[in-house]
Amino acid sequence: MIPPDHPRYRSLVARERLAQYAASGIVTLEGLTAHGRGEAFDYLIGEKTTISALQAEKTAAALLLSAERPLISVNGNTAALAADLLAPLQEKSGARVEVNLFHRSEERIRKIGSLLADAGVRVEEGVAERLLPLSHDRALCLRHGIYAADVVLVPLEDGDRCAALRAMGKTIIAIDLNPLSRTARTASLTIVDELTRALPHITDFCTTLSRDEAGRLAASFDNRWFLSQALEEIQERLSHALD
Amino acid sequence: MIPPDHPRYRSLVARERLAQYAASGIVTLEGLTAHGRGEAFDYLIGEKTTISALQAEKTAAALLLSAERPLISVNGNTAALAADLLAPLQEKSGARVEVNLFHRSEERIRKIGSLLADAGVRVEEGVAERLLPLSHDRALCLRHGIYAADVVLVPLEDGDRCAALRAMGKTIIAIDLNPLSRTARTASLTIVDELTRALPHITDFCTTLSRDEAGRLAASFDNRWFLSQALEEIQERLSHALD
Repeated sequence: MIPPDHPRYRSLVARERLAQYAASGIVTLEGLTAHGRGEAFDYLIGEKTTISALQAEKTAAALLLSAERPLISVNGNTAALAADLLAPLQEKSGARVEVNLFHRSEERIRKIGSLLADAGVRVEEGVAERLLPLSHDRALCLRHGIYAADVVLVPLEDGDRCAALRAMGKTIIAIDLNPLSRTARTASLTIVDELTRALPHITDFCTTLSRDEAGRLAASFDNRWFLSQALEEIQERLSHALD
Repeated sequence: MIPPDHPRYRSLVARERLAQYAASGIVTLEGLTAHGRGEAFDYLIGEKTTISALQAEKTAAALLLSAERPLISVNGNTAALAADLLAPLQEKSGARVEVNLFHRSEERIRKIGSLLADAGVRVEEGVAERLLPLSHDRALCLRHGIYAADVVLVPLEDGDRCAALRAMGKTIIAIDLNPLSRTARTASLTIVDELTRALPHITDFCTTLSRDEAGRLAASFDNRWFLSQALEEIQERLSHALD
């Protein structure tokens, strides 16, 4: 029981909700720690979508709309935090959705698949094969899913899976609050924003972007610029922090 | 099973260890998220003890040595991460140790007390009373413990308990990796360093500081300076981050 007079009540309640998903096996204990890292960086960018992040979200929509086979790779934290936001994004972007986990077990894949299906997401099914250049079960994915995709949106991804997907020649869109993470630096495009703020923006841009505009945006963008803008935002905040 | 070829192997193993303590009830699920926030800020200060943090650790030793009734308030994360480091600090500083929890239950108090006792810490016992200016069970502490202490070291404390203890006229030493947190700003002295790096330094200074030197240091220090130094450290790192 968090007392309502606690000054960080809202943030603590959100955290408690994620903890409940941990109890049901959707979120791993390591996933809770990862969420905490995200909270810290979100605090540093001001817990809002910055202008450059919105531009990255527009570019992400352009990449999804311009793709041959767009796909959204969903992990436990993403499902727990944003299952309801994925169905409209899937509808507007035409992307397939595959559950892909760092701490993989068939039981977790099944539970997360159910959570997504209940929220109206069509989830790819099939027998996973070892198709990614990673060790052990982390190589697993679906042949008609991630393996065949040309553009993959990977919210909250880990760094070396992002690198492995890039090495396969895919265009990777990451959503990562840490602009310095390996994922952020390795992705083709990094959205430095909180997941539940970022996804609805991408969905909106999928409906408002013309095909031409999407093609132009997708053809030329500079991920380093997005990262440097996020860093500038943090530095600006820090420089006034003790005022 | 984390593959040893994962580039963040060490950090992931540490996180997994904390997750094990969560399974045994010592660490709460919310505590894992809090640990993640700490990891993010530790990354930003370079995962090392900065020069100003070492000065803060020396000042903390001075405050403990100059106190009438020094006390260390221990929560679940602190016990899980640093039980072995608390026994020598208690011995050298002469501080009492009290278990005080945000998510308080008698069972957790008992488990954490056992973990500390096994590590050689003498833990204060007794019946907790509602003596702190906080709502519900968060007001609970021991009359001969936190309530009677003049200097309290509170590693990984939450902001409003820190404020409550300050309002009671106590000198509060916080260990907090976020130099902008309410705890960091509210404490009398904030050590912006990772817990298991900070505690041994404080212990060492407790043995090397003379009583005179301790008295001088304890009489005049500026917490704002320590916080601004930590912020400068982060900004310096961020400004070269994409080089």
